[in-house]
Amino acid sequence: MSEEKQNNNQLPTSAITNQSSSTSEYWFEYPVRAQPHHTDYLGVVWHGTYIAWMEEARVECLRSIGVEYADLVALGCDLPVVELSVRYHRSIHLGMVAVVRTRMLEASGVRIDWEYVIDSPDRQDLYVTAKVTLVAVDRERGKILRQLPANVQDVLAKISASLNK
Amino acid sequence: MSEEKQNNNQLPTSAITNQSSSTSEYWFEYPVRAQPHHTDYLGVVWHGTYIAWMEEARVECLRSIGVEYADLVALGCDLPVVELSVRYHRSIHLGMVAVVRTRMLEASGVRIDWEYVIDSPDRQDLYVTAKVTLVAVDRERGKILRQLPANVQDVLAKISASLNK
Amino acid sequence: MSEEKQNNNQLPTSAITNQSSSTSEYWFEYPVRAQPHHTDYLGVVWHGTYIAWMEEARVECLRSIGVEYADLVALGCDLPVVELSVRYHRSIHLGMVAVVRTRMLEASGVRIDWEYVIDSPDRQDLYVTAKVTLVAVDRERGKILRQLPANVQDVLAKISASLNK
Amino acid sequence: MSEEKQNNNQLPTSAITNQSSSTSEYWFEYPVRAQPHHTDYLGVVWHGTYIAWMEEARVECLRSIGVEYADLVALGCDLPVVELSVRYHRSIHLGMVAVVRTRMLEASGVRIDWEYVIDSPDRQDLYVTAKVTLVAVDRERGKILRQLPANVQDVLAKISASLNK
Repeated sequence: MSEEKQNNNQLPTSAITNQSSSTSEYWFEYPVRAQPHHTDYLGVVWHGTYIAWMEEARVECLRSIGVEYADLVALGCDLPVVELSVRYHRSIHLGMVAVVRTRMLEASGVRIDWEYVIDSPDRQDLYVTAKVTLVAVDRERGKILRQLPANVQDVLAKISASLNK
Repeated sequence: MSEEKQNNNQLPTSAITNQSSSTSEYWFEYPVRAQPHHTDYLGVVWHGTYIAWMEEARVECLRSIGVEYADLVALGCDLPVVELSVRYHRSIHLGMVAVVRTRMLEASGVRIDWEYVIDSPDRQDLYVTAKVTLVAVDRERGKILRQLPANVQDVLAKISASLNK
Repeated sequence: MSEEKQNNNQLPTSAITNQSSSTSEYWFEYPVRAQPHHTDYLGVVWHGTYIAWMEEARVECLRSIGVEYADLVALGCDLPVVELSVRYHRSIHLGMVAVVRTRMLEASGVRIDWEYVIDSPDRQDLYVTAKVTLVAVDRERGKILRQLPANVQDVLAKISASLNK
Repeated sequence: MSEEKQNNNQLPTSAITNQSSSTSEYWFEYPVRAQPHHTDYLGVVWHGTYIAWMEEARVECLRSIGVEYADLVALGCDLPVVELSVRYHRSIHLGMVAVVRTRMLEASGVRIDWEYVIDSPDRQDLYVTAKVTLVAVDRERGKILRQLPANVQDVLAKISASLNK
């Protein structure tokens, strides 16, 4: 995969470079293991499986700073994915462990960007890099919020504070 | 339920034998194809995939007799699965086509039983037999209904009538 | 759901009763959390999701006694699911934690039965009971083995020994 | 790759604009319906579901021009996804029908780009736009091919010819 690697090195790789200086240096780590139901006919993790793993890592990252995702939903605020970009660098085989590393970029308005690096526990093998953008939506009206509701702002302020620790 | 017990004791054939005489002879047919995301590391359809296919076949069977599942939900009536039994006879490989054949047994009270046979289009290869039991639930209260609401009864009468044509 | 509960109490509940006396008293515990991707339009865990959770619990149970599932596959021995029965007692909502408890019944010939109870961490709420039967298959020939290969027998003897500790 | 970068900077339209002039005007159409298992707690299609739908549309598009995906795999050539970008414009609710429209951009070397537009049958509502890049890989060696094997080149020539009809 050396060719792939070269490509990666040359690429803009929007998912992992050029973080703004306000970004936290903190990466949340969420380990996963490739179970049979994650794999496809090639014996490796099916490319769509990573979308689920990244969602789990987001939810657990929020929990780690005291934000229960189910509580956000109960507040009437949903955070649907509006953009997603993924680069697949190397496959994960049945039985292997990987670590989904993620960090939230500082929320600007109602958009929240998350960066992802999925690699081996020893960080020697890079599997996936990705970026996911969420938007805060008023669940009842199904509309993107121009301004976040006060209670959700509190939550995001909490998130932001935790990011800049 | 005693019938269910007997069937279980008689396995391996519980999923496909002993249909009561009141059962419709009509089987709804829903063709599927094994796509890459359906497969696992063995190159065959992952055993959990069939659960999704059987759900799709149920929904499309209902649609074929004029019942939109989403409308049922809007009526406040949900039909969650309360029991599921599946026997895997033969694997389906990447790219193969199969036919999910299903029929609804006559609804008794709030329980609705569905039988399944998944086989090849020429019916020469049997892949899966299964049985799924749904219960009508009042969505708001999260309770199993002792009696179906009138509008849902109308729907099920329609279903029943279609079964006994 | 009291009605449902009564039903459960009356039922044969093939999935959880009448274990043979040779069965281990040891239950392996595998905690799971209901993430957004596990849920369906009702806000609860989709019924097919449990199939994946039960597979994960099986694989991790084997790992806990020193058997790597990927190694079994490399030995040329696969353990496909040939039978599956599930009873859904109560729903799991977004964000909730559950514990998948499983134990393997003593392997008889080439069949291995697993029992499952999925309940709340405090064991007060029962969500799912299930039974899954695996068969040892010679991967190259795609045939069910009449007798297990020697190296796989060693593995299963190890499993059996661990069960009867 | 710099083109990819530019596209990203120009978002939100990267997925559907600036097709090169050599691109076919032909869009393959693959209708889908939002079934219960596709939805999440919000009652809409979970964002990862689209990855599966896009894969199905790719496989069926290839089949429509006489290329069986399973045959490609048998030839020793796999086409894993190496890049994926998705924009979610509007949600699809339980029971709704959508059309996955896709076209392949002319294959350059071993990379094949697919564009996607997922919208309503009447084309009035846009749900998702996306772009997926595949790379031809020698399955045995797990390496990206510098040059495609002759038999696979034949297949891709066939694809290319069909594109430029």
